[in-house]
Amino acid sequence: MSIKVEDYYSRDTFQRMKTFADEQETPFVVIDTATIARAYDSLGEGFPFASIYYAVKANPAAEIIRLLRDKGSNFDIASIYELDRVMGEGVGPERVSYGNTIKKSKDIRYFYDKGVRLFATDSEADLRNIAKAAPGSRIYVRILTEGSTTADWPLSRKFGCQTDMAMDLLVMARDLGLVPYGVSFHVGSQQRDIGAWDSAIGKVKVIFERLKEEDGIILKMINMGGGFPANYITKTNSLETYAEEIIRFLQEDFSDEMPEIILEPGRSLISNAGILVSEVVLISRKSSKAMERWVFTDVGKFSGLIETMDEAIKFPIWTEKKGEMEEVVIAGPTCDSADIMYENYKYGLPLNLAIGDRMYWLSTGAYTTSYSAVEFNGFPPLKAFYL
Amino acid sequence: MSIKVEDYYSRDTFQRMKTFADEQETPFVVIDTATIARAYDSLGEGFPFASIYYAVKANPAAEIIRLLRDKGSNFDIASIYELDRVMGEGVGPERVSYGNTIKKSKDIRYFYDKGVRLFATDSEADLRNIAKAAPGSRIYVRILTEGSTTADWPLSRKFGCQTDMAMDLLVMARDLGLVPYGVSFHVGSQQRDIGAWDSAIGKVKVIFERLKEEDGIILKMINMGGGFPANYITKTNSLETYAEEIIRFLQEDFSDEMPEIILEPGRSLISNAGILVSEVVLISRKSSKAMERWVFTDVGKFSGLIETMDEAIKFPIWTEKKGEMEEVVIAGPTCDSADIMYENYKYGLPLNLAIGDRMYWLSTGAYTTSYSAVEFNGFPPLKAFYL
Repeated sequence: MSIKVEDYYSRDTFQRMKTFADEQETPFVVIDTATIARAYDSLGEGFPFASIYYAVKANPAAEIIRLLRDKGSNFDIASIYELDRVMGEGVGPERVSYGNTIKKSKDIRYFYDKGVRLFATDSEADLRNIAKAAPGSRIYVRILTEGSTTADWPLSRKFGCQTDMAMDLLVMARDLGLVPYGVSFHVGSQQRDIGAWDSAIGKVKVIFERLKEEDGIILKMINMGGGFPANYITKTNSLETYAEEIIRFLQEDFSDEMPEIILEPGRSLISNAGILVSEVVLISRKSSKAMERWVFTDVGKFSGLIETMDEAIKFPIWTEKKGEMEEVVIAGPTCDSADIMYENYKYGLPLNLAIGDRMYWLSTGAYTTSYSAVEFNGFPPLKAFYL
Repeated sequence: MSIKVEDYYSRDTFQRMKTFADEQETPFVVIDTATIARAYDSLGEGFPFASIYYAVKANPAAEIIRLLRDKGSNFDIASIYELDRVMGEGVGPERVSYGNTIKKSKDIRYFYDKGVRLFATDSEADLRNIAKAAPGSRIYVRILTEGSTTADWPLSRKFGCQTDMAMDLLVMARDLGLVPYGVSFHVGSQQRDIGAWDSAIGKVKVIFERLKEEDGIILKMINMGGGFPANYITKTNSLETYAEEIIRFLQEDFSDEMPEIILEPGRSLISNAGILVSEVVLISRKSSKAMERWVFTDVGKFSGLIETMDEAIKFPIWTEKKGEMEEVVIAGPTCDSADIMYENYKYGLPLNLAIGDRMYWLSTGAYTTSYSAVEFNGFPPLKAFYL
């Protein structure tokens, strides 16, 4: 399959990024911040009633935080280090949600002391810690959803609890002096089945109703997490289609009284703004009769492409050379045999691709820079440039 | 299964490491360099005729490089960055092998300009690059071996070529003005089947003989790579047993004329010198009826424990609390659902383990610090202390 740049970037945007890239030594990622701004605006247009909390872990670059700060975004934060980064850019604590359900008591206190009052939880132990270290705060409970089979990078096993437990926790939150504020779910990152939202919203509706009837607790917020897909090899529906369908699900279940809606986009805002540029280091066969060619490039699984783990995310790879394609194995430059990006999924690359040619890994703005190893086989972390 | 510290460390060593660890904030790894020195000496005693090339990628800490430099070790290097590190510590180029078969032409030249004259290869393209950028150098060709099913962290698919091609490359090396010097193989890291060496040495013997008979090329060296196991959950034979058996294989095949033997230990020298100390952040269940507990700790797959990928390496985890054990899922502190260390392999941890308790991950000296992400979810890379 041949990758068409126009499926991912406008001609102008790509040309601007490529012109800049031509002057740099590989490997690096170049990120077009104007694309992020447009993605943010589109999301706001699709969900005009929602509050957007950018998932900082997708890419914590100061350039992105400042851009989204100025656009009025809120921030979904995973650690005290991310909090320092975001507040260091002048974001107030009222725009922050501590979205990680796994936190030390002293870290909860750190957020509280900085003024943060919105916390995710999914367990009794964590809730009791919040009650002590962040008294009076608003709590939302994360529930388990069944999105794992249709998301490319599933999220559902590690986080969240069953519906019954979620209700128990919200009642307990009230009893501990906290504000039972809402329910969150995450259908899985890069979720391609819109129906996953329908099923999750249905579960949330049950929690809202039963807590109101049985405990007199009025929940006010649904945090729908992230999960909107970026464009990789596998195509997805447009954001407009996602928005229309999800809004319809919400209206069906909450027609009379729409709660506050929070979205936590990461990948869908950032990925398609980035291009990772690498160079072919070596092309080889394992024997003179071997059909299969190996293409080794100067970026690897541990220097920016960790999401190729288990070949989960299939990044589109564009090359200047065209013509006849050949199935190849694609691997990184280190002595680690696990540093293979695509072996089972046979990628097509041009037969005339040569050592020194560049490979453009499209849609690589998210989960690349910050996930790079400090010095895997001595190689430095992935460089990043922000246009 | 309960982990006994004495299976991994002497009482004195463990006590010294723990006393130091007690004063530090988690997570971090503490490495006892005296243990590395002893492991180096044992390897030298087991293989008194072999040259040891430390695989720097296992842990590139200056403390370790200096120790092994002073002991007379050579160094197996994967990148120009590792070369700078090692030569920066005063190691001469005659003690360096460029063991990575994936290299840019300019990087080959960089090594050559620094004085390195020993290069691995496994492909024609790389060999031609070496001939141009490092004329006259000694070449060893890496062959494919079948160790992948019995090694915990297999190496065999990405590197090496078939025997026929190896011979072609050695002949070509001569024709290109290089010195066809030897053959290397790597049976897979953490290889537990000693027979894997027998089979590989047999292959090498064939190459030695046929090149001598058919092409008049006298090879001088066998690089047996690494692969000696460290002690993890799965127990292995002693180094003495490995040495005895492998020496017997060598003598069977090369009785009349033993070639120079190179070993490239990484894991087996360093792993058992390290203890990674983490703290329990949270313990939770997914529902009030769930049998399974999740133990979340402040170190994760992307902050030092990347070798838990696919649960490949099963690190022994020791806790001060004893008593009844329970099977748990063990996961890291980030918002990434892939940050789960052990889910299928049900680890036993004490039922009375509590938030704030420490977990001691034994045998974590290798492939932990340098493989840590720069800021995964904002968390800093793994700290390391060298005693």
